[in-house]
Amino acid sequence: MPSAEPPVSTASATESAAAAAAARSAPATPYLQVDVERLERNIATMQAFCHARGIALRPHVKTHKCLPIARRQLEAGAIGLTVATLGEAHAFAELGQVSILVGYPVFLDAGAAARIRDLSDRVDLILGVDSLDGIRAIAKAVPGARVRVEVDCGLARTGVEPAAAGALGLAAVDHGLEVDGVFTFPGQGYGPGNAESAAAAEADALARAAAAFAAAGLDCPVRSGGSTPTARHVRAGTVTELRPGVYALNDAQQRAMGVAEDDLALSVQASVISTAVAGQFVIDAGSKVLAADRPGYVDGHGWLPDHPGAVFTRIWEHHGVVDTSGLDPRQWPAVGDRIRVVPNHACTAVNLVDELVARHPSGTLERWPVTARGRNS
Amino acid sequence: MPSAEPPVSTASATESAAAAAAARSAPATPYLQVDVERLERNIATMQAFCHARGIALRPHVKTHKCLPIARRQLEAGAIGLTVATLGEAHAFAELGQVSILVGYPVFLDAGAAARIRDLSDRVDLILGVDSLDGIRAIAKAVPGARVRVEVDCGLARTGVEPAAAGALGLAAVDHGLEVDGVFTFPGQGYGPGNAESAAAAEADALARAAAAFAAAGLDCPVRSGGSTPTARHVRAGTVTELRPGVYALNDAQQRAMGVAEDDLALSVQASVISTAVAGQFVIDAGSKVLAADRPGYVDGHGWLPDHPGAVFTRIWEHHGVVDTSGLDPRQWPAVGDRIRVVPNHACTAVNLVDELVARHPSGTLERWPVTARGRNS
Repeated sequence: MPSAEPPVSTASATESAAAAAAARSAPATPYLQVDVERLERNIATMQAFCHARGIALRPHVKTHKCLPIARRQLEAGAIGLTVATLGEAHAFAELGQVSILVGYPVFLDAGAAARIRDLSDRVDLILGVDSLDGIRAIAKAVPGARVRVEVDCGLARTGVEPAAAGALGLAAVDHGLEVDGVFTFPGQGYGPGNAESAAAAEADALARAAAAFAAAGLDCPVRSGGSTPTARHVRAGTVTELRPGVYALNDAQQRAMGVAEDDLALSVQASVISTAVAGQFVIDAGSKVLAADRPGYVDGHGWLPDHPGAVFTRIWEHHGVVDTSGLDPRQWPAVGDRIRVVPNHACTAVNLVDELVARHPSGTLERWPVTARGRNS
Repeated sequence: MPSAEPPVSTASATESAAAAAAARSAPATPYLQVDVERLERNIATMQAFCHARGIALRPHVKTHKCLPIARRQLEAGAIGLTVATLGEAHAFAELGQVSILVGYPVFLDAGAAARIRDLSDRVDLILGVDSLDGIRAIAKAVPGARVRVEVDCGLARTGVEPAAAGALGLAAVDHGLEVDGVFTFPGQGYGPGNAESAAAAEADALARAAAAFAAAGLDCPVRSGGSTPTARHVRAGTVTELRPGVYALNDAQQRAMGVAEDDLALSVQASVISTAVAGQFVIDAGSKVLAADRPGYVDGHGWLPDHPGAVFTRIWEHHGVVDTSGLDPRQWPAVGDRIRVVPNHACTAVNLVDELVARHPSGTLERWPVTARGRNS
């Protein structure tokens, strides 16, 4: 384990001493807690999965925004990191000479040029492009920069048609840029039962994009895809690199898709603050710590692993209302009781807090700063 | 205007010089901007509305979490502030000897007791209660503290039945606490056409709670209600205090309800980052700067005031997809163009950023720290 994170308290000889130490360093509810044992198991499992298939792993760190977690991913064998913004890249540049892909169509205004030149000196930077405007702006700001062409595999968000990837790659070369390949995001794989066909669409789009590169006389060493739900359906030989993010922590959304269950490493620790209205209890965890993400296929605003049958029916900023009609009456909590809630979406929940409370198997708690929190640009 | 906020740049003699100064100090997109002229007009309008009806105004500052805005509200005549958490109360205690209501059923564990005693020394603190457990915990932590009883007026979230308010008030007195009255939140007034009946329910609940206090032999000097949509329907004589929050900034949610239009003071400044997929453009403002709040009655993930007909149809963390099918083709933007988006919910959007960019009528930009950001406990 890395030694750069100063422990808040060290593991004690006895269980009760460890519990006492944990209680001393635990913040007031609501706060976000990471189960370090599950986190490390999740990281190892995805790494082994990719290794067995000869696929490079470049985890998306927008999920956790946290250096101790990225360090664990790199130590486990990840070839580099994926970020969404230049600000996130700056935060993770603290890790040293690491490879960072900005997996996003980067457009640089005059102010961004200086930031990106500084970044290029510190890390091995790869910038996403999906337009000629983007290529021109990057070439002007950082002559000779390395770029990767984004293609669309059916999500219809960003990325050019795979058949157009060759022309864009050629334009990048004409502007003096280095092009290392193509990438896509099969985001349509979210939702129950969608992942397998999304992985097939990803494989098809990357193959067509690589063919377009070949037709333009360009090499295409990297064909990058992936997301947490589609990773298990990846077709070896079609993808050279995967960029899942959520897998390290997981969330109620992944659980609802059947992707995660025993590997939920992130939870909000909350307290019951009211039982004044019959048929429910109210906790201090609302959308300011859980985020308001709620896809239609997720049953509630978060999942209560210790209260089977309870449904998190309504949410405000600082109030979460949990319906107790499906809950064993012996489990009805009282004001002041602690409640554990798994957020629907790990990435947006983590983005709300300045630190994560990491719980080690010994019971020791450690504070991990969410260094890249709010780095939207 | 207060002088404690150091200006980033000062107003220039010519328009172009002012614009240049503004450009120098504007951060990279996406960022949240406050129109100071509209903000101050909104504050003055709500204050005048309350003053004309003999109602005290105690704005909820969880909306903006920002000292320069709270200072303007107090200078305009607000009798104090409402917050949701002890952490927010600590942040606003920086304003000096101000009256702060924690409009929330406060439950104090051992750790919170020291924090609240410190707060009680610095500000005129009032704590919400809706349970005997809460009363006992407060009485133990801060003997003689001032509390206010929360009653439910139909939202069925927190607060006791109005008829039970007297018993709870009496219990507080028995525990040596000072009780200044009752409060309620007519949150069912959100949604088009709901505000008037919610205001009536609020008036009814507060009257019944005050009667329950009288029957228990208790005075009830404060009957506090209010929210931004219900404020205009308030019944004078039934409510002694209003606690709206959003009115200072407003948002797309208030606009959808017909509550705000020319008084939208908050917007995200975004950039177009992709037009690769036909029929849409993609901006760099996603749920990490706009928040994911989307009530059913709001048409899209944010409102684009400068692009009538455009609909913000899909959102991810760093991507916002805007459908252009209803937009005049002459208005189709290009990569790099600036786009203004009014968030659906001001409170959760502001909670995502460390600072607001305040735009003064002169064009000067000033940075306002979001001091109480993330103070969830």
